[in-house]
Amino acid sequence: MRNFNIVIIGCGNVGGGTAKIIYDTSVELAKRAGNRQLKIERIITRHPQAAAKKYGLPIDLFCADADVLSNEDCEKYIQQSLQNPTVELIIETVGGSSVYIHDLHKRILKNGKHLVTANKAILAKHGYDIFEYAKNEQKAVGYEASVCGAIPLIKVVQDSFTGDIINTVSGIVNGTSNFVLSRMSNQGESFEEALQLAQRLGYAELNPELDINGMDAANKLKILVQLIYGIEARTQNFAVKGITTVWKEDFMVAKSIRSTVKQIAFATKQGNEVFAYVRPAIVPDSDFLHNISGATNAIKLNALYSGEHIFVGQGAGALETGSAVVSDVVFIAKHGFMKDFLAPVSPVQYKMANFSDYLSSYLLIIKTTDQPGVIGTVGTALGDTDINIENIAQSIISGPDWFLPVEVSKCSENKLQKAISLIRERKPLLIKDYKFLPIIG
Amino acid sequence: MRNFNIVIIGCGNVGGGTAKIIYDTSVELAKRAGNRQLKIERIITRHPQAAAKKYGLPIDLFCADADVLSNEDCEKYIQQSLQNPTVELIIETVGGSSVYIHDLHKRILKNGKHLVTANKAILAKHGYDIFEYAKNEQKAVGYEASVCGAIPLIKVVQDSFTGDIINTVSGIVNGTSNFVLSRMSNQGESFEEALQLAQRLGYAELNPELDINGMDAANKLKILVQLIYGIEARTQNFAVKGITTVWKEDFMVAKSIRSTVKQIAFATKQGNEVFAYVRPAIVPDSDFLHNISGATNAIKLNALYSGEHIFVGQGAGALETGSAVVSDVVFIAKHGFMKDFLAPVSPVQYKMANFSDYLSSYLLIIKTTDQPGVIGTVGTALGDTDINIENIAQSIISGPDWFLPVEVSKCSENKLQKAISLIRERKPLLIKDYKFLPIIG
Repeated sequence: MRNFNIVIIGCGNVGGGTAKIIYDTSVELAKRAGNRQLKIERIITRHPQAAAKKYGLPIDLFCADADVLSNEDCEKYIQQSLQNPTVELIIETVGGSSVYIHDLHKRILKNGKHLVTANKAILAKHGYDIFEYAKNEQKAVGYEASVCGAIPLIKVVQDSFTGDIINTVSGIVNGTSNFVLSRMSNQGESFEEALQLAQRLGYAELNPELDINGMDAANKLKILVQLIYGIEARTQNFAVKGITTVWKEDFMVAKSIRSTVKQIAFATKQGNEVFAYVRPAIVPDSDFLHNISGATNAIKLNALYSGEHIFVGQGAGALETGSAVVSDVVFIAKHGFMKDFLAPVSPVQYKMANFSDYLSSYLLIIKTTDQPGVIGTVGTALGDTDINIENIAQSIISGPDWFLPVEVSKCSENKLQKAISLIRERKPLLIKDYKFLPIIG
Repeated sequence: MRNFNIVIIGCGNVGGGTAKIIYDTSVELAKRAGNRQLKIERIITRHPQAAAKKYGLPIDLFCADADVLSNEDCEKYIQQSLQNPTVELIIETVGGSSVYIHDLHKRILKNGKHLVTANKAILAKHGYDIFEYAKNEQKAVGYEASVCGAIPLIKVVQDSFTGDIINTVSGIVNGTSNFVLSRMSNQGESFEEALQLAQRLGYAELNPELDINGMDAANKLKILVQLIYGIEARTQNFAVKGITTVWKEDFMVAKSIRSTVKQIAFATKQGNEVFAYVRPAIVPDSDFLHNISGATNAIKLNALYSGEHIFVGQGAGALETGSAVVSDVVFIAKHGFMKDFLAPVSPVQYKMANFSDYLSSYLLIIKTTDQPGVIGTVGTALGDTDINIENIAQSIISGPDWFLPVEVSKCSENKLQKAISLIRERKPLLIKDYKFLPIIG
């Protein structure tokens, strides 16, 4: 049986989980990889001993039996691996979207090695280039683990939805923000309390900025939109709102209409236009996303012929994400580079459109005070803007503030914005603050 | 662009939906198939005009512009297609598990054509042979549509779970029986009423025997177990109980413990043994399967590294199932025959074990009458058999019959059977009837 030699660069959570699975299941993997023995030639990381201990790996799998390596040392080991002709595939699990990582990807491919990565940040920035680059070098790029961890979305879109046309993608793709919102909703915790708990439980990074500002979810959505609609990720401009924009009163308002607030990634096509967002949205309790809590990820795909599909699984975790990385390695060991492996699945030239023009149902929440004529003024202004009201529920009273929830039928955010202007024109003191939350369903 | 010529044999629901998708989305498909133009060379069916009309297809796609063709005519057209060297792939959507179909599969492969089929009955019977046969002929067999229609389970197991080890598969894989049980549970309909409605709505065949006796679900489970654990489908002996064994009182009993009754397909491994069943089971309302109603299918996979995965989608329907057939065609047009494409993903020699020995939680329902000492006798007998009782709920009274629900901790069905014997020994008249329903969770 021939070996299939692998180098792993970066041994944090994902790299460690990946190495552990390859090391522990080599017999299974060899069989699945078309009788290639997957062999970790070397793991390159700055802290070999700590990583070996943490993931239960023999130290001789690592580039050196050392406590700490300098960047120069690591670079030297990387250089050796790139020049080692027996290495067929390199896994990059360093993370980050620096120029260094982008260059590293190119160096890996240029030196004739296949590339597997879980790095969504860099793929959202340079994925399109890297895929083109790989095509020219006749090498494969595996990136299953970059979107929703263990959920096999990339391969499913690439090879299972080829007999269909995906109209809409929506879901919960960031476990940290979902955990925080779940705690705020179910336990009534404040944003800060929930985030601190997420950090204590290891769900959130010590610097959870990309999770809470929505960029992590946006990176995943960009990769999916690129794959499904062929629009280069870097050029995708869509609105991204983080969970810091969620008021605690939003949950009370949402509950009053049998719903909750979730951080949702959404993309849909109409004609050749794609509308997308990442932002907090209203999820009715009849929707399956309502019950997705904690770090679990869930994606709904609506397709022209086969209708609705739901995929639920673990979006993070060392072994969970590692299993997706390993599935890429097995696939490449078995198939090598395959023409059009990376091609977007649609021949239509799609382009991004502005979600503000998209017709969605919304929950409009107006923060106001106890004063007469609020509902009349709001109702009239919406009517004057040709917006149909589905339901105006009772205001939620929170301290001196009243939060008026208004459900409106499908309309554009631009139109809602006009209605807000009209209200402000007519009653300058009525609106203290406001927000529009799209309603999922 | 080179053509990729396809012949479709059988133009019922699945064949018709498949032809419709290929015909309507040829530009999309060509791009996805690595620039091969998928071309329907011919559709062979006994009623060309009716099929053309029903699926909105031009009659010149069919083998003849005729109302009815004889079997001999069809066979002549099949023979022509087999001998046509420009045909690269043949789709069999005739259905049934006759020797004729098995021979047809072999003739297709022997004549150098790839085979795609949605036919679960024949694959559960002869799939293993056909895969071996195809390997020798260096041809591919696509069968994504044979298990759970549009849910991409086959490719997901083949190519996405290769970095993991699947411990358990469970789910709802027969839409008809699920529809019937949902109606019985939610609308209180009788079995006959619910089945007639399913037939009127087109969910159930006019002859729904394979749906209601569990064999359709069993065929799908056998194909999955063969794929996951490598045990030849034909040799798999596991217990199959149909939904005709469900009493209407089962739903009342289930509701009293916040659960319902669903027809469940289940397989799990312990060591190198695989335990499996298809039978009605108790699904607590906390389980996501609880809310899967109507013709929707849902599968839960529990894997060693990546934990729990859920897949939900449409398990039947012309276009839904057709989209899965087309994804196989695209895959094969792009990749052709691939070594080990069909190999089971595990090197372990698994064997089937008897589910009666498996430790599961059960709901024991004892049909009895209003008489003193029932709970005492039952409780003592279970205790004497070393079975732990989790809960004995109040009996459901239905006419002269009392239905006593007893939830027991993990134990084997064999042990439960012993407890029943003990009760009968001690109080011959106590048990009028009884059943054990495994509890999912």
